[in-house]
Amino acid sequence: MTRECKVTFEPSGRSVFVLEGTILLEAAARAGQIIETPCGGAGKCGKCMVRVTSGACDSCDEEHTVLGADRIRRGYRLACRCRVKRDLVVEIPETSLFQSSQKILATDAGGHLDVRPAVRKQCVRVTPPTREDVRSDSERLNEALGGGLRIGIHALQALPLALRQHDFTVTAARVGDHVIDVEPGDTTGRCYGLAFDIGSTTLVGTLINLCDGRELGVVSRVNPQTAFGDDVVSRIRRCRDEADGLERLHMAIRDAVNDMIDDLAKRAGIATDDIWEAVLAGNSTMQEILCNIHPFALGEIPFVPVFRERVRMRASDLGLRIHPAGEVSVFPQIGGFVGGDTVAGIIATRLNDMREGPVLLVDVGTNGEIVLAHEGRMVATSVAAGPAFEGARIINGMRATTGAIEKVVIDGDVEMNVIGNAKPAGICGTGLIDAVAYLLRRGIVDETGRILGPDELPAGLPDALLRRLVARNDQYDFLLAGPDETGTNEAVYLHQRDIRELQLANAAIRAGIMILLRHAGVEASALHAILLAGGFGNFIRRNNARRIGMLPPIDTARIRFVGNTSSLGAKRALLAADEWTRAEQVVRETRHVDLSLDPEFQEEFSMAMMFPGPEVES
Amino acid sequence: MTRECKVTFEPSGRSVFVLEGTILLEAAARAGQIIETPCGGAGKCGKCMVRVTSGACDSCDEEHTVLGADRIRRGYRLACRCRVKRDLVVEIPETSLFQSSQKILATDAGGHLDVRPAVRKQCVRVTPPTREDVRSDSERLNEALGGGLRIGIHALQALPLALRQHDFTVTAARVGDHVIDVEPGDTTGRCYGLAFDIGSTTLVGTLINLCDGRELGVVSRVNPQTAFGDDVVSRIRRCRDEADGLERLHMAIRDAVNDMIDDLAKRAGIATDDIWEAVLAGNSTMQEILCNIHPFALGEIPFVPVFRERVRMRASDLGLRIHPAGEVSVFPQIGGFVGGDTVAGIIATRLNDMREGPVLLVDVGTNGEIVLAHEGRMVATSVAAGPAFEGARIINGMRATTGAIEKVVIDGDVEMNVIGNAKPAGICGTGLIDAVAYLLRRGIVDETGRILGPDELPAGLPDALLRRLVARNDQYDFLLAGPDETGTNEAVYLHQRDIRELQLANAAIRAGIMILLRHAGVEASALHAILLAGGFGNFIRRNNARRIGMLPPIDTARIRFVGNTSSLGAKRALLAADEWTRAEQVVRETRHVDLSLDPEFQEEFSMAMMFPGPEVES
Repeated sequence: MTRECKVTFEPSGRSVFVLEGTILLEAAARAGQIIETPCGGAGKCGKCMVRVTSGACDSCDEEHTVLGADRIRRGYRLACRCRVKRDLVVEIPETSLFQSSQKILATDAGGHLDVRPAVRKQCVRVTPPTREDVRSDSERLNEALGGGLRIGIHALQALPLALRQHDFTVTAARVGDHVIDVEPGDTTGRCYGLAFDIGSTTLVGTLINLCDGRELGVVSRVNPQTAFGDDVVSRIRRCRDEADGLERLHMAIRDAVNDMIDDLAKRAGIATDDIWEAVLAGNSTMQEILCNIHPFALGEIPFVPVFRERVRMRASDLGLRIHPAGEVSVFPQIGGFVGGDTVAGIIATRLNDMREGPVLLVDVGTNGEIVLAHEGRMVATSVAAGPAFEGARIINGMRATTGAIEKVVIDGDVEMNVIGNAKPAGICGTGLIDAVAYLLRRGIVDETGRILGPDELPAGLPDALLRRLVARNDQYDFLLAGPDETGTNEAVYLHQRDIRELQLANAAIRAGIMILLRHAGVEASALHAILLAGGFGNFIRRNNARRIGMLPPIDTARIRFVGNTSSLGAKRALLAADEWTRAEQVVRETRHVDLSLDPEFQEEFSMAMMFPGPEVES
Repeated sequence: MTRECKVTFEPSGRSVFVLEGTILLEAAARAGQIIETPCGGAGKCGKCMVRVTSGACDSCDEEHTVLGADRIRRGYRLACRCRVKRDLVVEIPETSLFQSSQKILATDAGGHLDVRPAVRKQCVRVTPPTREDVRSDSERLNEALGGGLRIGIHALQALPLALRQHDFTVTAARVGDHVIDVEPGDTTGRCYGLAFDIGSTTLVGTLINLCDGRELGVVSRVNPQTAFGDDVVSRIRRCRDEADGLERLHMAIRDAVNDMIDDLAKRAGIATDDIWEAVLAGNSTMQEILCNIHPFALGEIPFVPVFRERVRMRASDLGLRIHPAGEVSVFPQIGGFVGGDTVAGIIATRLNDMREGPVLLVDVGTNGEIVLAHEGRMVATSVAAGPAFEGARIINGMRATTGAIEKVVIDGDVEMNVIGNAKPAGICGTGLIDAVAYLLRRGIVDETGRILGPDELPAGLPDALLRRLVARNDQYDFLLAGPDETGTNEAVYLHQRDIRELQLANAAIRAGIMILLRHAGVEASALHAILLAGGFGNFIRRNNARRIGMLPPIDTARIRFVGNTSSLGAKRALLAADEWTRAEQVVRETRHVDLSLDPEFQEEFSMAMMFPGPEVES
């Protein structure tokens, strides 16, 4: 096996193990650090500049041309060119981090951040009452804040003591013209917010300082609802079939979010009562269950959501453990299966503003959400890819956690990368794609997805590979790791059946893409870019995804990783409340294509079950 | 003792025991049935017409003139003329009941009631989704309701099941453009509201059907906060001096209100979840504690309230046991000691609209609130009358409950009326006023309030009275009931000290009235009317109140009972949400006079400590 190197990224401090020879750009992506590559990773634009501060990297001609000798000496490199050869510490300048076409945290020359969250704190000195001026505390506060405000019951309850505790200086927390609470003295420096990506499988929470937009921490964990079913359909069924189904699923997600809040606050050393806002984005089912809304209509034709607008409530309405009067917003959603995560993704990538040509946003997961933006219009759909990409329904499959084979290269023999540098225990989605792509390249799997027998194989295959083919019930499985190599002492195979599962998932995504292209009248070759989003999308090897036909055969330089856009969109909306207007406009402007109603989908799907020929790589 | 008669009023079914000879108008007032007397009880206008349906009453000339012989035969009488001679059942037509210058329940010819509460229910048929129309449930509801509404989280949570339970027919509960909840089917007929008078001593709750304005029940009970102190000052002190003081007082009142809600709902046979609105009025301290707002600033110079505007919240914010998304409103208030009950009183009596001449509204209680309306302007004040009128600080004093001497007549001897027709156990406020007024008339008490000794008394007093004077420590007490006559086997006296207490309470009210008259430049004799409000005010004998100087010496016909105006104002606001605009206008238009800051108050107070001479009755 190839040697692994540890790469640590600053200032986030995140680190990953990657195989020697991995491009730094990919290593960064796998650490959740999405680096800008406007030129598509061609080493031309210099936007992906990083600095190697420990360890060393060779430099290439393009880097010298773009960066100059002085910078090269100081350790600057292009992430799209530089290959990892040993352990490294790499600093990513903020300007190189992908934050879509506009920066989230627009800083002006003086370093001032333009942060405009929904909840705003305002510190004022209130005129104390006198015998001549016996107006109420509430009128005084209103006047000091500029007048015309509605002072809510929480604020009224806090007001008399707050005023008299710091000589009539108080800080009001406002949402628009509504004062939701007051605190004694000046607490404007203590105002935090949360952005949550509520995935079917994974929850990601980010704590942000709403004073300056700085990210104070990120936590993620498995959605505890997975215990109730892997996909949204099975969870809707639980809600429908069990009397306390919704309650249990709702409590599970709520408690998990609360635990994450406590965790984030503890690590950042802040009080949860200083968290004033939370923004959450997820698919329609996740969002409805989160809001304690019964999702059964999402499981029945014609699959209608309960809401499409932004849902606003107080933290206490949902039982979120932030300030009880804090503002909670759940993303608007486009349709039954094109949810808030997709809207957040559009917001994050500014897909609706892209005018360079047709752009496809693909969020690959148990549900694949696909949006095509073309000439200012958007069409969106979702496909049930099934859990194959999450390693489920794969005989030796597993989630992308320690022990998962996440990368496979098959040349003279099989080389692989295992998460956590451990002994392999199974294979996850990206490893599966890699393996099949290489087996297609080596001619071991044919276009129908069948693993060929020894007599059908192309000539000249190394013995090391031939030995891995194991006959079983008239078909062949492919050995990835023998019992002596694994952590479980049981062999890990790529089974013929696993390839069938991959074909189904793959075909669903591909057919969804093809239908959207057809709806918009766009040829695949005309695509200006494909944006690959989502936790899983991030780790896909682009050339392999193209090889198996999941993505249309366009130049890999035009396939860009955009990271967890659901989380990114939630952060945008948290930092600038006017994003909500944009998000609701996106909902109005996006046409929802229901594939179950599309007569051409089945045909496209059948066609996509076939793997493409080697010409896709030319 | 004079014989007692039981008078029952229909349709309310309320009954009282009164002394033989009592005017029916007074009997009705003491049963809480305030009858219209626009002519001041002069037997001229006929507005106080009632019908005696059981028992009999003599009729007088005025009644014949006003009502005609035919009506007289059918039992119709004028309540202002007719005296109770035996047990009666009396029917009060709705047109005779006092509901201030405008009827609360304006009925048109067809019997339709113009009820416009803040919470309104609207039943709609929503267009079901189809494959061609996959808009969200929320958009469908919004469209059916006319569009442009905000669907709250409670409504969203209820929506999908509600829609599909009754074939897409639902009832939305709205407050303005906010949908607070939805229910399956047509529930427009189930919409109830509550009006509460939150007195320092007594709580009164009324359950009202918001569909037609009908009153479904009334309950009252002692404010459990009395255990924490009789007056507001002692309760503010408890909140200030004890760590959990506010919490305990708040919980006490909240729990009492909730018990009353349960009681009202149970008696009316309705579900508390069908109660959608509650309106509460009380003095500033009661209102702040009810809202869980610390009232300490009401106990310190310059006595500022925390709010003066209407406070709106959800029932769940306050923990009221009605529909959790229901609307709760607390009355706006004028100043630290002129609270929501006074604003409600102005709303109830339409004092701000009176143009006939200067009108005084006097709500006599532990705190006396006084408002003078003159030429479209209002001045208001409050006086600390102390608890003498509630029977406290009176040696043999007690509240107006069973066993209290509530009426006294002193002629040849002492005659009295005891509440519940029981043996006397003590004396309450009205009895005290009666006793002192009669002792003044008989010359037994002089203008300084001193009970004279035998050698100073006027000649010709009957022995029966002389025997009641008992010397003690160089002064005299007056025996009301000997040990053999009482329920406790202990004599009930009117002590010299009690008269001093009464003088203090009396002087406070009188001085307050005088200061307001002076502020407005109005002579007492120019008063068009005095409206006596409040549970206690209702039972005062007008001529006796005038004799002791509590009220200015105007014709008793111009002194009118207006009942519990705090409760009445709360009902008005419950039945017509536009009353809130009026109430907030009242707050802006009423000048608050702080007597503690008024240099002339002490002088007026000293003068009012003297009882007036016999000329006030001429």
